[in-house]
Amino acid sequence: MPSVKYELLYWSGLQGRGEFVRLAFEEAGVAYVDVALIPESQGGGDDVVVRGMEDPREKRPPFAPPYLRVRGRLIGQTANILEYLGPRLGLAPRDAAGRRWANQLQLTIADLVAETHDTHHPVSSSLYYEDQKREAKRRSRDFIAHRIPKFLGYFEKVIERNTGTGPWMIGSRITYVDLSMGQLIDGLRYAFPKAMAREMRKHPRLSRLHKAVFARPRIKRYVKSGHRIANNETDIFRRYPPLDT
Amino acid sequence: MPSVKYELLYWSGLQGRGEFVRLAFEEAGVAYVDVALIPESQGGGDDVVVRGMEDPREKRPPFAPPYLRVRGRLIGQTANILEYLGPRLGLAPRDAAGRRWANQLQLTIADLVAETHDTHHPVSSSLYYEDQKREAKRRSRDFIAHRIPKFLGYFEKVIERNTGTGPWMIGSRITYVDLSMGQLIDGLRYAFPKAMAREMRKHPRLSRLHKAVFARPRIKRYVKSGHRIANNETDIFRRYPPLDT
Repeated sequence: MPSVKYELLYWSGLQGRGEFVRLAFEEAGVAYVDVALIPESQGGGDDVVVRGMEDPREKRPPFAPPYLRVRGRLIGQTANILEYLGPRLGLAPRDAAGRRWANQLQLTIADLVAETHDTHHPVSSSLYYEDQKREAKRRSRDFIAHRIPKFLGYFEKVIERNTGTGPWMIGSRITYVDLSMGQLIDGLRYAFPKAMAREMRKHPRLSRLHKAVFARPRIKRYVKSGHRIANNETDIFRRYPPLDT
Repeated sequence: MPSVKYELLYWSGLQGRGEFVRLAFEEAGVAYVDVALIPESQGGGDDVVVRGMEDPREKRPPFAPPYLRVRGRLIGQTANILEYLGPRLGLAPRDAAGRRWANQLQLTIADLVAETHDTHHPVSSSLYYEDQKREAKRRSRDFIAHRIPKFLGYFEKVIERNTGTGPWMIGSRITYVDLSMGQLIDGLRYAFPKAMAREMRKHPRLSRLHKAVFARPRIKRYVKSGHRIANNETDIFRRYPPLDT
């Protein structure tokens, strides 16, 4: 059986929401083409990401990257992509109720990702951070005081109540949700190093999960390879010291 | 075969995200218990919604309402609830690719719902609107100028490219996505009557879908029954005239 060709379409300069999908492919050891990262001369680049979305012949266009091209179809929305890939990459629970729970957790992770983005862009994504700095400070203060503790407290509880063994959120095998959770913690630690140092001491199970994700042999190899895009200030998780109180 | 008992757990005083679920039950004509809306003396009320989430014996607790209790399980996250209910209520496409597309669109609707909420709460959900009025004005101006046109332009295109017949987003039969889209337009029209009057003239297909949803016999009956909670300023869609420019 010929293997399926997976193409991921996402911006080349940031981890962003694409990284949640990349980590699933990397952990599974399944080949994928990261289209924007291949040279323009070979049919890659960010323009191809835009053209794929804006193709007037496309009957089911995505709203925004990341999206997947597989078997001639486009699949958008990060949680939807992962719900599709999960069982195919061996990274989802085997039973329907477990897969529903995985999707529910993934959507809760997505909520925190969106809230994190808005700490540096509380007014508008189309304005620079510098043009909404005052609002960003106010929002970040609240985010650190209320939202991070609320979400991390919830996720800690989810691991605690998991009846499986090991550091994971669902059952005893790693799923795409664990990879996304690890990535989220990693990003928050990058963006808010001071606040997260305090928070992670209160959440030992999340600390353990985060370490376990980045200790996976294939994830370690991926990080060491240099292919993982470095954290930077065009990304969702940005290190702006005035926001980390 | 005994019918399944569906319990919806959501706050009693607002349409909120619960309304997307309510509309699916109403359109399907399937009985559900709206737990917070029944009297406390009969085991209802908002406290029951909180207790259900915070039950320490619950292995898979939801992060926030709305959530569903069905066959002894809790199912959270609006899009996840609708993905579960869709096929069971006859409100989802029959093929797997269609259901994936429905979920993708529902998640894009959810993104706009979250952005709408943040127009009046750009700094923090735990502060009053009055304490973030200046930021709310700035965010709403951007929301009206850029985000509403971008999202509605996208959804208009989705209807235009749908190969089915009728006013719907997917195929030729109404799905839960259409109900949610109708509700979203309805809420935006309530919150931003001036801006939306201009916008809807540019999006005839969305206007037609909105009318078609609220012309469905069961939805009409539901709205007329008085059971639909009225729009109000504790909800996601709030009418604050200074924000509607």
